[in-house]
Amino acid sequence: MIEKSQYIFGLRPVIEAIEAGKEIDKLLLSKSLTGDLSKNLLDCAREHGVLVQRVPVQRIDRITRKNHQGVLAMLSAVTYHSLDSLIPSLYEEGVNPFVVVLDGVTDVRNFGAIARTCECAGVNAVVIPERNSVSVNADAVKTSAGALNYLPVCRERNLVAAVKMLRDSGFKVVGTSDRNSSNYTLCDYTGPVALVLGSEDTGISPEIMKLCDTRVVIPEFGQINSLNVSVAAGVMIYEVVRQRLNDNQAVK
Amino acid sequence: MIEKSQYIFGLRPVIEAIEAGKEIDKLLLSKSLTGDLSKNLLDCAREHGVLVQRVPVQRIDRITRKNHQGVLAMLSAVTYHSLDSLIPSLYEEGVNPFVVVLDGVTDVRNFGAIARTCECAGVNAVVIPERNSVSVNADAVKTSAGALNYLPVCRERNLVAAVKMLRDSGFKVVGTSDRNSSNYTLCDYTGPVALVLGSEDTGISPEIMKLCDTRVVIPEFGQINSLNVSVAAGVMIYEVVRQRLNDNQAVK
Repeated sequence: MIEKSQYIFGLRPVIEAIEAGKEIDKLLLSKSLTGDLSKNLLDCAREHGVLVQRVPVQRIDRITRKNHQGVLAMLSAVTYHSLDSLIPSLYEEGVNPFVVVLDGVTDVRNFGAIARTCECAGVNAVVIPERNSVSVNADAVKTSAGALNYLPVCRERNLVAAVKMLRDSGFKVVGTSDRNSSNYTLCDYTGPVALVLGSEDTGISPEIMKLCDTRVVIPEFGQINSLNVSVAAGVMIYEVVRQRLNDNQAVK
Repeated sequence: MIEKSQYIFGLRPVIEAIEAGKEIDKLLLSKSLTGDLSKNLLDCAREHGVLVQRVPVQRIDRITRKNHQGVLAMLSAVTYHSLDSLIPSLYEEGVNPFVVVLDGVTDVRNFGAIARTCECAGVNAVVIPERNSVSVNADAVKTSAGALNYLPVCRERNLVAAVKMLRDSGFKVVGTSDRNSSNYTLCDYTGPVALVLGSEDTGISPEIMKLCDTRVVIPEFGQINSLNVSVAAGVMIYEVVRQRLNDNQAVK
């Protein structure tokens, strides 16, 4: 169930919202929409980098029965950060950066749980792609136990380019995999680290995997061999924390 | 929603089920139930160690409208093991035992998630109390991704006595706490270990906490300070695995 506070509808209200700088998760446009004003809307969306999805009008009807004119914008529950400007500012603050990249995590519960762990562990940002990713909506904020109110989220149009940028900025990019991988505890995480986690069913996409400096795996000893992705994230994230605390001699 | 396969009802059917050795999670008896046959049932339940709960008849009516005669037995989805006999058999097999004790975890999702992690990490058993605990029903098996079909579950009538027995059997009992605790990575888990996890709201009960050899905490650095209990369990369980693999020089 989508709550009313999470969307706005109608051609003019949506154009105004975009121009006012509201964070829009995605813009649903009826496939049958035409006319000058709809052209204005498309230009405006392109200019502000808003993701547009053409859908059958019935999809919008299921969300609201009011006079939506074939236009509905899903609002984001958080303000996105730009990785471009976040990385330099972390270095400037003297932070040893640690970011978590989610490649294809679409389940809101898993996303919320991972965000919660990231916030607790002091992760500096979580990076998600614009497409094929979770909606950072009120449900996500709720399952994150409020963590998404504090943890910077970078939603990148091109995740491959974002991971390349992390590499170019001195990050070690570590991917989780089950093939050709070493035990995750054998990797050194004491420098700048980007931990890449894939979806539960298909894992990390091949393009992103190629960019990883190291592939690691969490050893499993049972019959079912399927750690939950949010538990696996917690285990890996806290191994980074362990190594860094040891390295700093700043263990509590 | 409770599925029909998860319960049986009526005086004689329930007596027969108990005598046939079916695993019964708990037995609901209407407060108004009297008569010889109900005395037989109570004797039979006592003899077989079945947990009896006296409830208003409406509670049973909500589960089935059939002729339940004020008697309804909730079946367990797993076969329980006895800690008494499990511990010696682990030692006899030459296992370096590792058990997880759940003190007051009542949420089926959290229980299932923890069981899933335990099975993947090679934990030998999970120990839960008979009262104030989760129902190990079909939902629990489902959220555990089937782990509960493999992982031994010990349901102990007296959790304090069970923890004492673990100590007497050479286990280091490690409790998670936020007060007077050291970083969880500073504790040595290479010998027999019983990891005690408390409920999300109240933590480990004072009686059990007194029996812990060590109290440890997972460090947190954010604003929300509340790791999910199943993620915290994963982090601690895999620290035990890490130390044991290092110790055995058997790292993959």
